[in-house]
Amino acid sequence: MKIDGKHYLTIWHDDNDNNVHIIDQTKLPFKFEIKKLETFEDGYNAIKDMLVRGAPLIGATAAYSLYLASKQNEDFDFIKKKVQEIKNARPTAVNLSWAADRVFKNLDKNNMKSSILNECKKICTDDIKISESIGEHGLKLLKNIKKNKINILTHCNAGWLATIDWGTATAPIYKARDANINVHTWVDETRPRNQGSSLTSYELLNENIDHKVIADNTGGLLMQKGMVDLCIVGTDRVSRNGDVANKIGTYLKALAAKDNNVPFYVALPSTTYDKSILRGEDIPIEERSENELKYITGYDEDGNIKKIKIYPEKSKGFNLGFDITPAELITGFITEKGIFKPKELIDIFG
Amino acid sequence: MKIDGKHYLTIWHDDNDNNVHIIDQTKLPFKFEIKKLETFEDGYNAIKDMLVRGAPLIGATAAYSLYLASKQNEDFDFIKKKVQEIKNARPTAVNLSWAADRVFKNLDKNNMKSSILNECKKICTDDIKISESIGEHGLKLLKNIKKNKINILTHCNAGWLATIDWGTATAPIYKARDANINVHTWVDETRPRNQGSSLTSYELLNENIDHKVIADNTGGLLMQKGMVDLCIVGTDRVSRNGDVANKIGTYLKALAAKDNNVPFYVALPSTTYDKSILRGEDIPIEERSENELKYITGYDEDGNIKKIKIYPEKSKGFNLGFDITPAELITGFITEKGIFKPKELIDIFG
Repeated sequence: MKIDGKHYLTIWHDDNDNNVHIIDQTKLPFKFEIKKLETFEDGYNAIKDMLVRGAPLIGATAAYSLYLASKQNEDFDFIKKKVQEIKNARPTAVNLSWAADRVFKNLDKNNMKSSILNECKKICTDDIKISESIGEHGLKLLKNIKKNKINILTHCNAGWLATIDWGTATAPIYKARDANINVHTWVDETRPRNQGSSLTSYELLNENIDHKVIADNTGGLLMQKGMVDLCIVGTDRVSRNGDVANKIGTYLKALAAKDNNVPFYVALPSTTYDKSILRGEDIPIEERSENELKYITGYDEDGNIKKIKIYPEKSKGFNLGFDITPAELITGFITEKGIFKPKELIDIFG
Repeated sequence: MKIDGKHYLTIWHDDNDNNVHIIDQTKLPFKFEIKKLETFEDGYNAIKDMLVRGAPLIGATAAYSLYLASKQNEDFDFIKKKVQEIKNARPTAVNLSWAADRVFKNLDKNNMKSSILNECKKICTDDIKISESIGEHGLKLLKNIKKNKINILTHCNAGWLATIDWGTATAPIYKARDANINVHTWVDETRPRNQGSSLTSYELLNENIDHKVIADNTGGLLMQKGMVDLCIVGTDRVSRNGDVANKIGTYLKALAAKDNNVPFYVALPSTTYDKSILRGEDIPIEERSENELKYITGYDEDGNIKKIKIYPEKSKGFNLGFDITPAELITGFITEKGIFKPKELIDIFG
């Protein structure tokens, strides 16, 4: 996808300096800054502190962190330990474990570094293909809506910034644009970290996609008023039965969609399906610092980036990162292999 | 209710300077500032610019604005014109029309100023009684919950800052505290104007009520996890059939409450019931400036109040103030006359 007209991936290995490069997403939309990851710890912290976020990108970063570890020490047991460590950087997205395990399974003890790097690159290439396929399958859905302008609601950022390229939930939007379908996107602000207003709006702006930012509270009324044709969201982990862990607030939008007969789709790369977890309630939910709620960053009137405190110091906050949308609220999963009902997932990806 | 241990109403007439005084709620929680309203225009702007907000307080301010008009000109036709004008200050809360009409109906042409002032004071005294009765009836609900700690979720601010004293949705909480019932309140942040984190948390802090601020997205998961015993919200207008207009996002919480068998109550002073409107979809919904979403105010690290911009200038926002919660999602209305089902309202208040 493009920033100021130039094509970028969200993570890449630079052959010149032999390091891994990412876009620091904590700086967006205020500053476009590329950050170099030189050590395993750099990668671990990039995941933990959310310089990178989004299940597929977390997976790729975990893989590359193991490559950086192998640069530090090619010892098999050292790498094995790092595989376990990186899995604990964040709890909810299953891609983290998936990618770390994939790297570990495919490493060549006699050729540690280059075998890991090779697998990292494959993970990224595969992810781009998966996203693009999700886009193609989602496009069919949009083609079936016979309207001059199609209104899509999305929550959080399941855009290219959450993947390597294209995005999951946004891929059908980009494919629709390329197919000359007129699409308008309602962008949920996505409190408390505002990934919608900060990241999704930023990437849609850069790709010239018509969109409007709304408070997370607004989607219900828009659906009541017939102003949403379909919802497409991403996911951090889908359990065996099709329950969906995704950014907190997703469940509320799914309830409103059901109540107003608005189709509710989840863009699901197969890498995010976790058949080992039977039901959504068993997916670990990350509790994060209340400071993410209490403090917010933006531009002051002089154009400087400022962090301010928005509620009384003595009032405490409670900040959970994800919620669970039960399978029965989901119209379908848009995957790289086609569109499926929750019950079909186990047969396709099991 | 108390600020720093001192009892305040949210609006009062000062016999010394013969003006109306309010707490400027746009400054809270950062600064406690009393503002003097000297003219009709001061009153109109206080409503429009949300220095005062909350249906009952908007009503009282409308009434007092007419008193301020009568100080400027005691002509009957002038006042009649001002009654129409003040009704247009904001569209959704029915108390605005109700209070203006009540003042107009009771004015004494030969004794304009003092008859209006008298009615304003009665409106306030009545409102305090109504809020306190809502508190008493709500308390019975809380007494029926046999738990060591009762978790209540509320949205926006339907506290004493939205009324003259006590509040509507918060009155049962204060009454419970006085009855030594252990209550904890989940305070929805309430984007985009953050009345929850700015006002509700501020008043609960000042009244020493245990509470935590949560993102608007969080209530659904808390209900799934059994962490909410009941929801109590306020309302800006209830239609004849019991549909509820309230701060945007209320509908989403009501859906989650239904989905998880959590009782969902609306605190309703009879002054907010509008039998002339048949259904919720006929209640006018206020569209407000997107700047309420794009800009946010708080303290910077030096303790100065700063306004910052939190998403890209070129991304547009869309900002609706209220949504409609259908009657079938509402467990009951806590009114000054008792607790009623939606269908009973017309018999009680019709």
